[in-house]
Amino acid sequence: MNAAPTSLSHRNDSARLIVHHLSRSQSERIVWLAEELGLDYELRRYERRKDNRLAPPEYKALHPLGAAPVITHGDLVLGESAAIVEYLLTIFGEGRLAVSSSESTFSDYLYWFHFASGTLQPALLRVFYLELAKTDPNHPGLIAARERFDLALSALDDRLAPRAAVETPWLAGSAFTAADIMTVFSLTTMRLYRPFDLSPWPNLVAYLARIGERPAYRRAMQKGDPDLLPLLRALP
Amino acid sequence: MNAAPTSLSHRNDSARLIVHHLSRSQSERIVWLAEELGLDYELRRYERRKDNRLAPPEYKALHPLGAAPVITHGDLVLGESAAIVEYLLTIFGEGRLAVSSSESTFSDYLYWFHFASGTLQPALLRVFYLELAKTDPNHPGLIAARERFDLALSALDDRLAPRAAVETPWLAGSAFTAADIMTVFSLTTMRLYRPFDLSPWPNLVAYLARIGERPAYRRAMQKGDPDLLPLLRALP
Repeated sequence: MNAAPTSLSHRNDSARLIVHHLSRSQSERIVWLAEELGLDYELRRYERRKDNRLAPPEYKALHPLGAAPVITHGDLVLGESAAIVEYLLTIFGEGRLAVSSSESTFSDYLYWFHFASGTLQPALLRVFYLELAKTDPNHPGLIAARERFDLALSALDDRLAPRAAVETPWLAGSAFTAADIMTVFSLTTMRLYRPFDLSPWPNLVAYLARIGERPAYRRAMQKGDPDLLPLLRALP
Repeated sequence: MNAAPTSLSHRNDSARLIVHHLSRSQSERIVWLAEELGLDYELRRYERRKDNRLAPPEYKALHPLGAAPVITHGDLVLGESAAIVEYLLTIFGEGRLAVSSSESTFSDYLYWFHFASGTLQPALLRVFYLELAKTDPNHPGLIAARERFDLALSALDDRLAPRAAVETPWLAGSAFTAADIMTVFSLTTMRLYRPFDLSPWPNLVAYLARIGERPAYRRAMQKGDPDLLPLLRALP
């Protein structure tokens, strides 16, 4: 967040909420969350630079880190997907899309919520950056990175496998939650940058089909990236 | 988390809490948190393999992802630093080391808590892995990675700068919180793997000196990595 202190007295929960969305970026999570919660918000779209596909100067100027996502809420400027999601759920969620500590799936919710930005996305970026740097495909570092990413996908696929004991159509269990909103970007839009085939993970393919049936997800992608057909099928 | 569902009825808050600590790893955060909270827990230490410095098979067997940290609490097996920290704070914290939504620094707490595993550690690992792969020092991908990591350190340094308006000795403001526990590993123990000099960031150096004065941090490092002198000074 910005170095300036944020203040709830300044914050004023009725202040205008603006979701600053960089096209084809992790900020799609925040647009999606806003649609799932039915928030009253303003969506501001920013196109990537044509020359290098990076964020435009106007987006970088929003926040010291210059990365998506960013929201503004009154005087508050907030970045970091997980921070924004927890903030919006706390201020506007009224318990929706989260799991309380009194529920049996509380730790599942916590794990998969944080797995998205703590393990899955970094594992994919590790492969992505090594490949961009033209690393020898046989370099043990790249082989290890690919194995790690496959392990992350297999863990997700296993989590979403149909089982008799308990229904897990969603990552936290029977209920769709913010853990799903945190995770889907790495399995869909990221494949525009580093294509990979999901067909070895049938439970992930079925999961993305369920995601694609959610009206809020469809609205969010239509509003945020109208030129983009979400990669909800197995093949890139 | 493991694919098996967790259950709070199984969980039983009085069940034995075991912190599985892999030497010189991110699980030092969990030992530290347990010491700050004064938890009744069992610490199990695992040494890295001599040949490749990776986790031993016993550690990998704890959890599907095979990565540190891992805790067990009754039947529950939980991984992912941020998930474990939120779990322990919720079950045992009684409000300590966190910031509630009624406080003015709530969003600062959320941002810096998630910055640690969402931005800082991935930015450092991006440089680390590219260098391990012997990427040409002039490759734009490596240059961009180093700039990104420096930007993350500068953001932290700026956040911790002494300012008249508000005291920020800790990342969330005047109070030490779990945001600090999430962050310090990348600035200290990670420098054993990828050394970097903190002297360009004097506020980070002063911050680590404050960290080093915390009895719970000293106890945690003494118990978890007794052979390790924490890298709390500027030079690697």
